[in-house]
Amino acid sequence: MKTVTTITELRDALDGHRARGDRIGLVPTMGCLHAGHASLIERAGAECDVVVATIFVNPLQFAAGEDLVSYPRDLHGDAQTAAAAGATLLFAPSLDEMYPGGRDSVLTSVAVAELSSVMEGASRPTHFSGVCTVVAKLFNIVGPCRAFFGDKDFQQLAIITRMVSDLSFPVQVVGCEIVRESDGLAMSSRNVNLSDSERAAAPVLHRALRAGAAAVRAGETSADSIRRIMGEQVATQQLGTLDYVDVVDPDTLRPVEVAGPASRLFVAVEFERARLIDNLDAGAG
Amino acid sequence: MKTVTTITELRDALDGHRARGDRIGLVPTMGCLHAGHASLIERAGAECDVVVATIFVNPLQFAAGEDLVSYPRDLHGDAQTAAAAGATLLFAPSLDEMYPGGRDSVLTSVAVAELSSVMEGASRPTHFSGVCTVVAKLFNIVGPCRAFFGDKDFQQLAIITRMVSDLSFPVQVVGCEIVRESDGLAMSSRNVNLSDSERAAAPVLHRALRAGAAAVRAGETSADSIRRIMGEQVATQQLGTLDYVDVVDPDTLRPVEVAGPASRLFVAVEFERARLIDNLDAGAG
Repeated sequence: MKTVTTITELRDALDGHRARGDRIGLVPTMGCLHAGHASLIERAGAECDVVVATIFVNPLQFAAGEDLVSYPRDLHGDAQTAAAAGATLLFAPSLDEMYPGGRDSVLTSVAVAELSSVMEGASRPTHFSGVCTVVAKLFNIVGPCRAFFGDKDFQQLAIITRMVSDLSFPVQVVGCEIVRESDGLAMSSRNVNLSDSERAAAPVLHRALRAGAAAVRAGETSADSIRRIMGEQVATQQLGTLDYVDVVDPDTLRPVEVAGPASRLFVAVEFERARLIDNLDAGAG
Repeated sequence: MKTVTTITELRDALDGHRARGDRIGLVPTMGCLHAGHASLIERAGAECDVVVATIFVNPLQFAAGEDLVSYPRDLHGDAQTAAAAGATLLFAPSLDEMYPGGRDSVLTSVAVAELSSVMEGASRPTHFSGVCTVVAKLFNIVGPCRAFFGDKDFQQLAIITRMVSDLSFPVQVVGCEIVRESDGLAMSSRNVNLSDSERAAAPVLHRALRAGAAAVRAGETSADSIRRIMGEQVATQQLGTLDYVDVVDPDTLRPVEVAGPASRLFVAVEFERARLIDNLDAGAG
């Protein structure tokens, strides 16, 4: 695996592959790679000839007061993880390489209406525009035929899929299953910012989702009842504060009144230095 | 020249060229092609191996009450003009091919802040976001290495150049000189919507710009004086109503106080069924 830090180096490294018709896969990340990221890189390796993993903590998707500064970084460890998972190229640009002149010099933004205003977008109104803008830029830099994203950020995946469709990016967006710790906690770079006691409490997100899915399996169709069941689960611990639970249509991301196995369940919980999210197919189990 | 109407046909037609490393040039238009468009296609032909001209009257860049319905259309004539100018492929998609589900189904938008809120953007606040969205989509469909735009839409050219830079599109944006009728009227598809008497009055836009440039050459540095001189020229006829005249910095598009040969002069005049714009380098002549 080769690590490059400039757009020019990366394009030069890819030119030969592109000329040979190699399939280029992209795994965009914010670094601090864990087994979830590794699974995306492995999947990309199974489906493509060249795998580009990118590491860039994108300031455009953090609002003032969010955890841009405390977002964990570990480039040395990331290079080892990406290489072990089979990445061909690791692209780790500086802020100045991506946004010469800084984040405020970026006048262009890409936004997806409707899908971006609910759930995470309600809590973080400028977040998804920042995500779409950097993902569009990475698509333009790398020119992948496939791009791999985790289901943990289900809303992000839905929004990027819509952006690709609306703007006809020649990219196939591939959603990949959530990788979990043995106690059910979804892998997340932010997990390292949990205290020991918070880490012990954090599987409550997955327990809440499973309780919701169990209720659906048992025949409960009232989305409000399922929201209440999930909220009660989160309330069984005191370290994390519930941000939201929801039962939504997986295509529109709008709340449903009548839940069923095709619904998707979501939860977000705020701990002291980490806000965690998780989601589950209501028909899971 | 081959005319295609679907994205799939176009991509299929381009795949072989791309595999051979041919340089692909893009000339995006709204059709009703005139000698100005022909000059863009000819320039593209001189610099590229394959020239894709596109014809799509993009509803996203028209607000309610603007001239979407009356915008002139002439696909048969366009095919002749494009072929004569040397286009390799003419892409003329339907509304449904570009935006399945109609314009309201497009949730994604691309916008360039600051540059889009002045001049044309002040008169047409959603216009440039519509332009950027369709141009980004055409870039993704065609995958050109160069794209050719006329200087007549100078603000559009500046905005697209900025979008390409901010989002790292692998495209070189080429601005091309305005082509004028013998009486100075800038070529525009909208000119066909002028009445005979309006057509006779319309060269006033170019006269106003030349009067402004002459003042700069004569040593006038007060931008307000130059605006007044240009406005007075437009007022020498009664058929068209002045929308704005301005003297701006060509990079920021912001009004200047002190004019010089590096400034850019702009004028917009509203006729009954056509709103015309024009611009000139203040150092011209």
